[in-house]
Amino acid sequence: RVYQGAPTGTDIECEGWRQEAALRMLNNNLDPDVAEKPEALVVYGGTGRAARSWEAYDAILDELRELGDEETLLVQSGKPVGRFPTHERAPRVLIANSNLVGKWDNWERFHELEAEGKIMYGQMTAGSWAYIGTQGIVQGTYETLAELGRQEYEGDLEGRIVVTGGLGGMSGAQPLAVTMNRGVCIVAEVDARRIERRLETDYLMERAESLDEALDAATAAAEAAEPYSVAVETNVADMLETMVERDFVPDVVTDQTSAHDELEGYYPSGYTVDEADELRASDPERYREASLETMERHVDAVLELQERGAVAFEYGNNLRGQVEEHCDHENAFDFPGFVPAYIRPMFCRGRGPFRWAALSGDPADIHRTDEAVTELFPENDSLTRWIELAQEHVSFQGLPSRVCWLGYETENGVTERARFALRINELVAEGEITAPVVVTRDHLDAGSVASPHRETEAMRDGTDAVADWPILNALLNCAAGADIVSVHDGGGVGIGNALHTNNHVVLDGTELAAEKARRVFTTDPGMGVVRHADAGYEDALDEADRSDVAVPMRDRG
Amino acid sequence: RVYQGAPTGTDIECEGWRQEAALRMLNNNLDPDVAEKPEALVVYGGTGRAARSWEAYDAILDELRELGDEETLLVQSGKPVGRFPTHERAPRVLIANSNLVGKWDNWERFHELEAEGKIMYGQMTAGSWAYIGTQGIVQGTYETLAELGRQEYEGDLEGRIVVTGGLGGMSGAQPLAVTMNRGVCIVAEVDARRIERRLETDYLMERAESLDEALDAATAAAEAAEPYSVAVETNVADMLETMVERDFVPDVVTDQTSAHDELEGYYPSGYTVDEADELRASDPERYREASLETMERHVDAVLELQERGAVAFEYGNNLRGQVEEHCDHENAFDFPGFVPAYIRPMFCRGRGPFRWAALSGDPADIHRTDEAVTELFPENDSLTRWIELAQEHVSFQGLPSRVCWLGYETENGVTERARFALRINELVAEGEITAPVVVTRDHLDAGSVASPHRETEAMRDGTDAVADWPILNALLNCAAGADIVSVHDGGGVGIGNALHTNNHVVLDGTELAAEKARRVFTTDPGMGVVRHADAGYEDALDEADRSDVAVPMRDRG
Ligand SMILES: NC(=O)c1ccc[n+]([C@@H]2O[C@H](COP(=O)([O-])OP(=O)(O)OC[C@H]3O[C@@H](n4cnc5c(N)ncnc54)[C@H](O)[C@@H]3O)[C@@H](O)[C@H]2O)c1
Ligand SMILES: NC(=O)c1ccc[n+]([C@@H]2O[C@H](COP(=O)([O-])OP(=O)(O)OC[C@H]3O[C@@H](n4cnc5c(N)ncnc54)[C@H](O)[C@@H]3O)[C@@H](O)[C@H]2O)c1
Repeated sequence: RVYQGAPTGTDIECEGWRQEAALRMLNNNLDPDVAEKPEALVVYGGTGRAARSWEAYDAILDELRELGDEETLLVQSGKPVGRFPTHERAPRVLIANSNLVGKWDNWERFHELEAEGKIMYGQMTAGSWAYIGTQGIVQGTYETLAELGRQEYEGDLEGRIVVTGGLGGMSGAQPLAVTMNRGVCIVAEVDARRIERRLETDYLMERAESLDEALDAATAAAEAAEPYSVAVETNVADMLETMVERDFVPDVVTDQTSAHDELEGYYPSGYTVDEADELRASDPERYREASLETMERHVDAVLELQERGAVAFEYGNNLRGQVEEHCDHENAFDFPGFVPAYIRPMFCRGRGPFRWAALSGDPADIHRTDEAVTELFPENDSLTRWIELAQEHVSFQGLPSRVCWLGYETENGVTERARFALRINELVAEGEITAPVVVTRDHLDAGSVASPHRETEAMRDGTDAVADWPILNALLNCAAGADIVSVHDGGGVGIGNALHTNNHVVLDGTELAAEKARRVFTTDPGMGVVRHADAGYEDALDEADRSDVAVPMRDRG
Repeated sequence: RVYQGAPTGTDIECEGWRQEAALRMLNNNLDPDVAEKPEALVVYGGTGRAARSWEAYDAILDELRELGDEETLLVQSGKPVGRFPTHERAPRVLIANSNLVGKWDNWERFHELEAEGKIMYGQMTAGSWAYIGTQGIVQGTYETLAELGRQEYEGDLEGRIVVTGGLGGMSGAQPLAVTMNRGVCIVAEVDARRIERRLETDYLMERAESLDEALDAATAAAEAAEPYSVAVETNVADMLETMVERDFVPDVVTDQTSAHDELEGYYPSGYTVDEADELRASDPERYREASLETMERHVDAVLELQERGAVAFEYGNNLRGQVEEHCDHENAFDFPGFVPAYIRPMFCRGRGPFRWAALSGDPADIHRTDEAVTELFPENDSLTRWIELAQEHVSFQGLPSRVCWLGYETENGVTERARFALRINELVAEGEITAPVVVTRDHLDAGSVASPHRETEAMRDGTDAVADWPILNALLNCAAGADIVSVHDGGGVGIGNALHTNNHVVLDGTELAAEKARRVFTTDPGMGVVRHADAGYEDALDEADRSDVAVPMRDRG
């Protein structure tokens, strides 16, 4: 099979744009520029698929082409299994992927069923037809660092030095996200080819020949308040230890090497990449030991820099967990994870990813929305900066798309997310945008996830594992009339470790779309506010007051 | 607190009947005649609760009283946590109870969270405000035996002898359910008081002084084709062994003693009840051993009777599992469970519980619906018989209620369940029924459950544990406009062992109610048809053909 990705333009194959949007987003997921292995239906994240089999894929397309405006298609782990009469305010597609009853909710049972073709791993955005390739990557890191700037420095990262590790698939976004926030980044990467690639795409500015050179250049840039990024070809643990020795204390220290996997991901100190690759093949057990030993030194160096005044946080790679578990290290968790530190304060206010794609395939449509969002929120400095820099640095892949973070905060009773969605809908109605736009999100959102290793790590009230919330979120999205609603087991962190809900709203310029958008972009971020209010977060209770969100048990008090 | 149960009559406290129905059903759950321990908010099944705390209960009532016709209330494990604007076709209440992310989905974590007041066990009908006390009990057993009659004898149980054990809470329904199906029942019960109670309530006809007397009386009744039931005060294992010795082979052998619990439930042979109770207290380990030894003999006797021609099945008490696991018995599973044997063929056709309550509190309203259902389905002999006998034997508790099993089968495109719901709605509109009626269900339904130890045991394609189905069911019920939609972990079989979806539709005589009823009672049983069609059951594929249910992958073939 040869895949072209999504159909584009203004002619449609389906009965309406809602169905057409589902069809285009599914195909966009499998665009050779977007998907990792489209020929195997694999979109990203190991084996995250868009459909269970090619037969199932063909059947989904046929169903979508015939689906009426008052019908709903059911997709069970990537296979279409039913189609029922509903009504126009209801979703057009409902999806549930890789969900298993608790006791059986593990990779072992999953793989048995998968081998028999009975289930599919959809990650989160693969199985919900919402992946947008590298267009989605820089943004989360940008937002995290923007929040760090607000919290730690009451501003941005101007004049601040951020030290980190890793220039791979996701981690490669770090230097760009730092400079977008006006900061200075020093990044350690063992693999010279990874450094090259990031230089080529302008995600990284320079490569230093030595750590000394990097430190000098970074210090100079910070003093001049210039955005700057530089990579050093070295093991991150070695680099941090040297910093400790020299008492070079950066403003911020974090890391995104693949520490979650001590064999296939992280590189041990004392070996070149080639030597390490050989060791992995010849003696995996020794590799593992060496790798975990390096991680322990890595953590100790982070803790020491933190002790001396650096802001330290773990960036979702499980470095702390590995060292605590395998090295018997009692203090590994003495520096926080990024979610409790920087993401959760945003979740409390319903802030999270608003991800939109132009179904026309025309980049000009996205540029029009870029204008619209900066016009709508002129006072939001980090948003404006993000949009400008994204235009410069983030290249389109498949359907042109954009992501930014928006929250609940209401103006005349309409939330931030709803205001922007309604504005896009108007632009579509006026013909300023040539075809409908679809809005969706990624894993990391305020009120739609239970994932104790990542999004709901260390909730204040200990409810990390309570999965009532994503289920209520899915039901409420459905009640509010999202056009696709989906529920996924195991996105990002593997089967049995998380439950995520996704949604899509198609903005086709109609009054129906406006009604759906107004509702979904109230209920969906609103669930973030109430979920965090229920857990006792002040920011959430404050947002509920400010934006008039009902918190039943509190409101009675 | 003193509880009166549900408010009755035609005056309402809420803005509309949909909200009022939720309020009345929640209170009905806690009616002292219905609930096990209303003072502790416990409705049934150990600790199945209707609300997390009295404070939460009060807040739910307040919320329901104020809830608008275009708003939706969110209840998370028995606590109201949010209220959002939606629309009139959407549900008024969404509930998620005791759901945990897979890896943490067990009693241990649950109890930790419960102790802190962070979660609640809702069983299934407790937490979804749908319990109706003993009014709900006889019916499931009646339907199972009716299906057994159809399958094994192409008719009912006339002239057939059914042998079983147990006259407790649920098991006590057995003799009545057998005679309602025109059969003869011999039941063994160790506890004389349990026998007395069932005689008093007319669930049981006679008590024999000896097994001989029981066999003679039963044989005579069967020959005369007379319904008859008789209890023998004896251990069921002893009774079955005697039958084997005498080569007395009944038509059917089953059992509903509490074999799932070898210490607190099942009685070992060789002890009186009092002796056994003493042994349990003084030497639980010896009790356990004796109990499991008796179970092994029990299973051997069942297998021997099966070998000699009896129809044998396990009745949901895990007798086979206990003997396989603890006695190393390889053949324990050589007789089937009741679900694969008798319930699943009905599920394939979307047949399942249709449970309705008269919100007026007036028994005459239920009698009017009884007439209506028999008028609507005059050719359904077992339904007519059920209604007649239920009127005689099932006494009302709390809001007068009824249950019967109805399926998908369409007439002019309208399903069986929808036809009856629409008829009730008309009767409400015409004033023949004095107040609205609410329709819901119990655990055991066709397309709304994943429960590998019970409802989805031994699915043909091995998908017992796949939980995508109940999630899709909940989303689709929501899309179709059910008035309450709820999702529950662990109903009946404990945390981590099952996922159930429940729904309520309020029939208030309006066109909106008719629209919702038509949709929900199509999509909901329809999911039973497609779930079983997907698993490869012929009956389901046949029902899909007959009633025009879309099965996307098959329809392309
Ligand atoms: N925000 C989140 O929650 C989030 C998002 C994405 C990724 N992650 C995590 O971040 C990590 C990185 O993801 P990725 O997609 O970039 O992985 P990747 O494997 O593509 O990249 C990791 C990079 O780190 C380098 N590296 C490994 N060990 C090193 C060491 N000791 N010193 C210096 N460099 C080293 C590798 O050469 C590679 O280039 C993963 O653990 C992933 O799970 C978290
Ligand atoms: N359809 C279903 O899936 C379903 C529904 C309800 C109950 N059940 C199962 O059925 C069983 C019975 O439920 P219940 O509510 O009636 O329980 P119960 O404990 O109230 O009643 C069981 C009765 O069996 C008697 N008994 C115990 N051991 C005996 C023995 N060896 N010989 C003779 N009598 C004996 C007890 O004295 C008691 O009266 C349970 O295991 C329950 O889980 C299954």
